[in-house]
Amino acid sequence: MVLLSGGLDSATTLYEARSQGYRCHCLIIDYGQRHRREVESAKRIAQAAGSAARVIRIWLPWGGSALTDRSIRVPVGRSLKKIGKGIPATYVPARNTVFLSYAASWAEAIGASAIFIGANAIDFSDYPDCRPNYYGAFRKVIRLGTKAGVEGREIRIATPLIRMTKAKIIRRGRKLKVPYELTWSCYAGAKRPCGRCDSCLLRAKGFREAGLRDPALV
Amino acid sequence: MVLLSGGLDSATTLYEARSQGYRCHCLIIDYGQRHRREVESAKRIAQAAGSAARVIRIWLPWGGSALTDRSIRVPVGRSLKKIGKGIPATYVPARNTVFLSYAASWAEAIGASAIFIGANAIDFSDYPDCRPNYYGAFRKVIRLGTKAGVEGREIRIATPLIRMTKAKIIRRGRKLKVPYELTWSCYAGAKRPCGRCDSCLLRAKGFREAGLRDPALV
Repeated sequence: MVLLSGGLDSATTLYEARSQGYRCHCLIIDYGQRHRREVESAKRIAQAAGSAARVIRIWLPWGGSALTDRSIRVPVGRSLKKIGKGIPATYVPARNTVFLSYAASWAEAIGASAIFIGANAIDFSDYPDCRPNYYGAFRKVIRLGTKAGVEGREIRIATPLIRMTKAKIIRRGRKLKVPYELTWSCYAGAKRPCGRCDSCLLRAKGFREAGLRDPALV
Repeated sequence: MVLLSGGLDSATTLYEARSQGYRCHCLIIDYGQRHRREVESAKRIAQAAGSAARVIRIWLPWGGSALTDRSIRVPVGRSLKKIGKGIPATYVPARNTVFLSYAASWAEAIGASAIFIGANAIDFSDYPDCRPNYYGAFRKVIRLGTKAGVEGREIRIATPLIRMTKAKIIRRGRKLKVPYELTWSCYAGAKRPCGRCDSCLLRAKGFREAGLRDPALV
């Protein structure tokens, strides 16, 4: 089970899981995000990887985030020093908890042994649900709260990128032949990446530090 | 925030939360359950309590449970000694984890201070996601994985019924004037309760032990 958003990190995670010998099922979640076009990217990436994929449409109608509520603006043009210090308006209440709960349900139903998620706590937006101790807590929820867990069939949560810099992720992904030209990171979700939201800025920093050109911008 | 299913336990939990002075918002989840008519019961109970309610339609298309997959039969006519020993086919993979994750998202978006859930680990079907240690683990997920949690605005998970017998729940509910005539417990979801599924059997045991008649059967 791979949670695939269509961004750079989750695409690399899918290829990482494949390289470890897993037969992957991708869970793609359309939650009404501003940048819903990432869903199309995710589908193409799963196809390129030759992995099964399922798109789930969910509904978080209470907003509370710049990604799900059009009346809240996506921060743009922030300095890289500021990104990662303080939780920004693009935080979606309990989003990864909702995503992981669906992943746990599907994983249990099909007997999957692991859930891969491309969370990263280095070049990131300081989201609490991207930090290592959060994943430790969720592991325990699965162990105690599922039939598989209490019967000793572990469903582990794998976060292979969690302590990597964006540059390191990209270099690893290049080796794994991740089709970065298909990935989509921009929060604005227009025709072309805006280049100014936190997600674009972190992505650009990663390619810059890796000494590579971003193939999605060519 | 009260997770309201339309059954006896969640209805009592709503009235318990009200009696503790909370202004309640009910989250009612239609997950394609066989006994979807409980959703209508839940709406009526919220209305009777004068509480706000929101119905969310979700989709767990991978089945894996007698409640969401018509090809799996609901066990009937089991002896009360067997119920609670071993997880039955009505277990839905990670269901309460999915429910709590939505509740956490909504609670955080509206600034709610608690999530009430009518889980019970005494007269129950041995579901792992009804046990006290599971709720302890989920509390930690909320504390570590939400903005509210990491900033010190606790969203507690309240399970007021978890160690009560069904009879005790019913006696408490009578004092709180819970409209049990509006509740629906039967898994079969036909016009009348089947009287033979685990849920009907546990309910009947509760009323019997409380020395009361079930007003839903009158």
